[in-house]
Amino acid sequence: MSKLTKIVIAGPRGRMGLEAVKMVTGVENFQLVGVIDRINEGKNLSDVLSSVTDNNSKVYTDIAVCLQDTKPDVLIDLTVPEAAFQHAKTALNYGVRPIIGTTGMSQAELEELKMLAKDKQLGCIIAPNFAIGAVLMMKFSQMAAKYFTDVEIIEMHHDNKLDAPSGTAIKTAEMIQVQREAKKQGHPNEVEKLQGARGAEFDGMHIHSVRLPGLIAHQQVLFGSTGESLTIRHDSYDRASFMTGVKVSVETVMKLNEYVYGLENILD
Amino acid sequence: MSKLTKIVIAGPRGRMGLEAVKMVTGVENFQLVGVIDRINEGKNLSDVLSSVTDNNSKVYTDIAVCLQDTKPDVLIDLTVPEAAFQHAKTALNYGVRPIIGTTGMSQAELEELKMLAKDKQLGCIIAPNFAIGAVLMMKFSQMAAKYFTDVEIIEMHHDNKLDAPSGTAIKTAEMIQVQREAKKQGHPNEVEKLQGARGAEFDGMHIHSVRLPGLIAHQQVLFGSTGESLTIRHDSYDRASFMTGVKVSVETVMKLNEYVYGLENILD
Amino acid sequence: MSKLTKIVIAGPRGRMGLEAVKMVTGVENFQLVGVIDRINEGKNLSDVLSSVTDNNSKVYTDIAVCLQDTKPDVLIDLTVPEAAFQHAKTALNYGVRPIIGTTGMSQAELEELKMLAKDKQLGCIIAPNFAIGAVLMMKFSQMAAKYFTDVEIIEMHHDNKLDAPSGTAIKTAEMIQVQREAKKQGHPNEVEKLQGARGAEFDGMHIHSVRLPGLIAHQQVLFGSTGESLTIRHDSYDRASFMTGVKVSVETVMKLNEYVYGLENILD
Amino acid sequence: MSKLTKIVIAGPRGRMGLEAVKMVTGVENFQLVGVIDRINEGKNLSDVLSSVTDNNSKVYTDIAVCLQDTKPDVLIDLTVPEAAFQHAKTALNYGVRPIIGTTGMSQAELEELKMLAKDKQLGCIIAPNFAIGAVLMMKFSQMAAKYFTDVEIIEMHHDNKLDAPSGTAIKTAEMIQVQREAKKQGHPNEVEKLQGARGAEFDGMHIHSVRLPGLIAHQQVLFGSTGESLTIRHDSYDRASFMTGVKVSVETVMKLNEYVYGLENILD
Repeated sequence: MSKLTKIVIAGPRGRMGLEAVKMVTGVENFQLVGVIDRINEGKNLSDVLSSVTDNNSKVYTDIAVCLQDTKPDVLIDLTVPEAAFQHAKTALNYGVRPIIGTTGMSQAELEELKMLAKDKQLGCIIAPNFAIGAVLMMKFSQMAAKYFTDVEIIEMHHDNKLDAPSGTAIKTAEMIQVQREAKKQGHPNEVEKLQGARGAEFDGMHIHSVRLPGLIAHQQVLFGSTGESLTIRHDSYDRASFMTGVKVSVETVMKLNEYVYGLENILD
Repeated sequence: MSKLTKIVIAGPRGRMGLEAVKMVTGVENFQLVGVIDRINEGKNLSDVLSSVTDNNSKVYTDIAVCLQDTKPDVLIDLTVPEAAFQHAKTALNYGVRPIIGTTGMSQAELEELKMLAKDKQLGCIIAPNFAIGAVLMMKFSQMAAKYFTDVEIIEMHHDNKLDAPSGTAIKTAEMIQVQREAKKQGHPNEVEKLQGARGAEFDGMHIHSVRLPGLIAHQQVLFGSTGESLTIRHDSYDRASFMTGVKVSVETVMKLNEYVYGLENILD
Repeated sequence: MSKLTKIVIAGPRGRMGLEAVKMVTGVENFQLVGVIDRINEGKNLSDVLSSVTDNNSKVYTDIAVCLQDTKPDVLIDLTVPEAAFQHAKTALNYGVRPIIGTTGMSQAELEELKMLAKDKQLGCIIAPNFAIGAVLMMKFSQMAAKYFTDVEIIEMHHDNKLDAPSGTAIKTAEMIQVQREAKKQGHPNEVEKLQGARGAEFDGMHIHSVRLPGLIAHQQVLFGSTGESLTIRHDSYDRASFMTGVKVSVETVMKLNEYVYGLENILD
Repeated sequence: MSKLTKIVIAGPRGRMGLEAVKMVTGVENFQLVGVIDRINEGKNLSDVLSSVTDNNSKVYTDIAVCLQDTKPDVLIDLTVPEAAFQHAKTALNYGVRPIIGTTGMSQAELEELKMLAKDKQLGCIIAPNFAIGAVLMMKFSQMAAKYFTDVEIIEMHHDNKLDAPSGTAIKTAEMIQVQREAKKQGHPNEVEKLQGARGAEFDGMHIHSVRLPGLIAHQQVLFGSTGESLTIRHDSYDRASFMTGVKVSVETVMKLNEYVYGLENILD
């Protein structure tokens, strides 16, 4: 891929935005041409972010002005739902392909973006989860469920996590559920000598949540069949991992002429 | 799937054949209608196999006679390459779909079967490896290699194994190689303080072979990227695991009207 | 170790006994001098066990006669509790060191054997679990619990297993409990969005039971602390694994002059 | 443990020192009474470390003055070898127990500290590695090697690491070597079809080094025996993990009246 892709990032000072700036400025054929922020109008990016020393992209508070000035190919939006919707709409209207990393837009808003992208024949990616490894784990699990009727999920997180199972574990189970015929697993007569030993049940599958200090965010999906097992495991050590997903999204959105929801639907 | 599939098995006294008999007689909508053996003409299967007590399928030494008599939908062949080729050809000519589990047919023979299947508009599956978990591991690894540039393979077997790396590890690396741009992994200046520490190199990937008493046949494929890793692992405990692959092959061959080589190409 | 150890096995036709015969006849400085069986008096072992072809140990139905005739150093008993107690007592009275692999003797019987061993100044090992890898896993877990306050146990078995958690998981938790101060793990405000997700609780620890076809018997004990985790895992693939424990027991009992209960107490 | 332990830290601005300050000020019955630094004489610690807001320990550049003023029980030294030796000597002479986290002192210096500690009847701990999980992994591996003759080590690090195998892997192999009879593992006739597949050899054991982006520092030690395997794994995610080892060292040094080298020798 040798053509230069010009990119604007909205929300450059957030945790994700900061990583996105680092990623975009580090990829050879990506060029960061501007950023959209609520404040700092007219400053240089390097004045605003102490970690960026050699980038003179301008900061804009008005997206329309930004897009007119910088003429980007792609808008990466890592802000909040309300802003993201307006940003995506404006981008499409200016012929710019949006990649939106937020969750929380309404079904009506998503539908509106979908129609607009279709109308404009432009790629538009909405990705609630940019962790490409996690998305592949879920995708592979769904595929494996076609051939393995029995599956258990073990997710493991640091012990500050409040909810169990994790959102990713539930999303994985839901994706498996689409594929497989429901099956109540385990021996029909199995007995819990200590309550909870067999974990949570989700449509016949079992989900186990481990919480230990030191752990970060890990999940394994175990499939068992006569004489064999297949395990798909994802370990997330650092938020920076999301950026591989953002990078793939940029590359993909340039080839798309429609709206896609979910990273799993652009991976093949 | 409610329709009955009538099946003939060639090679019922071999290790794989024995498992196949067990599998076919255990699946509700499969019916074992006959077996092909080099000896035992005219006997009942239950006279020949001590483990089969309630099946009166006839034993045939002549495949043509067998197919005419039993009119099966599918032939499962678990014999040797020379026999397998003749069996597959005869089956196709009788309108029976062959599933061949042997390796070692020549390219010319494979080509001939391919043409014949096309001509007859019949499914025909040649599967050197029926271990569906292993095949999925390889397939997923190939898919993941599109998004992860760095991968290492660790295969682990009992210490009676003579060759390292295993055939499956090499096949996995070959499948990954098709997908990814070659990359010499590890730090350019890395140094082996003990020779061999970094394992074998295959097109820039690294492969490690562990041999320990007690182990059976295990492999993990590890992908790493900024801040995350993705691991796909297969554990094979018992030869019976191959039968899931045979079962899927039977179900699939009935829907096919062409020749397919390799289980990975019928899984989706 | 160059001195020959002469051994009698009680219960040679049981599953464990059969493995023991194989083990004893395969170790260079062990000699199988006789077996005790309920039947087959006076036959040769090779007449009784089809898998033993070159061993002419005599079969005895009376233990006293056997010990007088064969003058062994060690009796390995793999029978049932009632027989085992009588065998152990008789052995000690004849100056023979017993290794008893059964569970289910009463506290009074165990106490009697302990006193008798002390009186005779003879080694005597009672081992409910000969799986040396499992015993080491439990022992190491107990040791680690001194330094890691947080631990979760994941045990994984085939889906024919009826009880959850496994006996080994509970025994592991009990051994850890001896060492650590009780601690209710996880975040105080954690919430199970699906009931059972956090597993069974045992004195503040969490235990998770996975059941999948294909699995055999596996357990991992996970310890977590700031910035690190320590995992101890045992995989049991085959009953033959018990024989390493029996072998170590034979070697150890020869150096003991007292009663010991539990393999964990002879490992150092 | 209810008695208050008064502690001085040398090297508070280094990466390890910073973590030690955090740890000591976070443990209820530890009290940080002063720090030793090359500069900043007379300042308060909270003036020197931006992350410390509520600690008014004084900064000293002269260790003798510091020990006289603050009368600590323990000195934690996380400086460089030259300074550490002088600090340890001075501490012992003032009746203070030193814990030294540096490597690189000469044999003569270590010997001198040993004699001095003996003379003063004071605990003194020299610990080249404070990662308690890693030390337990090595210790357990050494213990397991008594019962398992076959072992392979797989260490896995980020791909910026230059040397393979890691120092920890080699140290683990050395500790196992002490315990086991040398054994050339694997099948005598095994063949590497790709050179290096079987890894590095160390006294008959095999060591494999995996390098992947995203990984941090991980090691597993795999033991295999008939029908079973035992795996001991350590994952290090963060330097903060060392502090558990420092904490245990403080608790232990107070009960010691002699010199000990290596954390493995204070764990039981």
